[in-house]
Amino acid sequence: MFRHVVLFTWTEETTDEQKATLAAELAKLPGAIPEIRAFTFGPDAGVNPGNQEFAIVADFDNVEDFLVYRDHPVHQAAIAEHIKPIAASRAAAQFVFQA
Amino acid sequence: MFRHVVLFTWTEETTDEQKATLAAELAKLPGAIPEIRAFTFGPDAGVNPGNQEFAIVADFDNVEDFLVYRDHPVHQAAIAEHIKPIAASRAAAQFVFQA
Repeated sequence: MFRHVVLFTWTEETTDEQKATLAAELAKLPGAIPEIRAFTFGPDAGVNPGNQEFAIVADFDNVEDFLVYRDHPVHQAAIAEHIKPIAASRAAAQFVFQA
Repeated sequence: MFRHVVLFTWTEETTDEQKATLAAELAKLPGAIPEIRAFTFGPDAGVNPGNQEFAIVADFDNVEDFLVYRDHPVHQAAIAEHIKPIAASRAAAQFVFQA
């Protein structure tokens, strides 16, 4: 399997409404992009200090399916409309793992 | 489920041997810490520019089990001996998801 991980912090001006809208839009992605095998996301649980504020972990059968997701217009629209306006920082990686 | 995500970059001086040793030590954690429900990790696949260099995603039944892992001496030894000597940066988050 091919796993995509991304962590965000948000700008100080980010509202709860913007965060809720993002979560609602992210929840639509698995229905719009059938290459997604598993899709999890959520705000940081607040257990550890110094954490990022939001995480997404998405699984695919292989790198080709990840690239379909990465470049998919529905995903790109979510990034442009709901992530970029509120993101202060982004950290990401993709890696292969045995399911 | 409770998901722990951490991304690292390594110092320029980090050797392939240090990276291989870290992977071998991480692979031992699920056997040493029974609270771990799923444990995946690996070097960045090199698909996207600007990524972090290494990712770990670990799943637990709940936050209490995550805390057992976080504070477990075997995990803390792996951090002290195999991560801190080579880490240039660290970004992490934990979040709740529906399995």
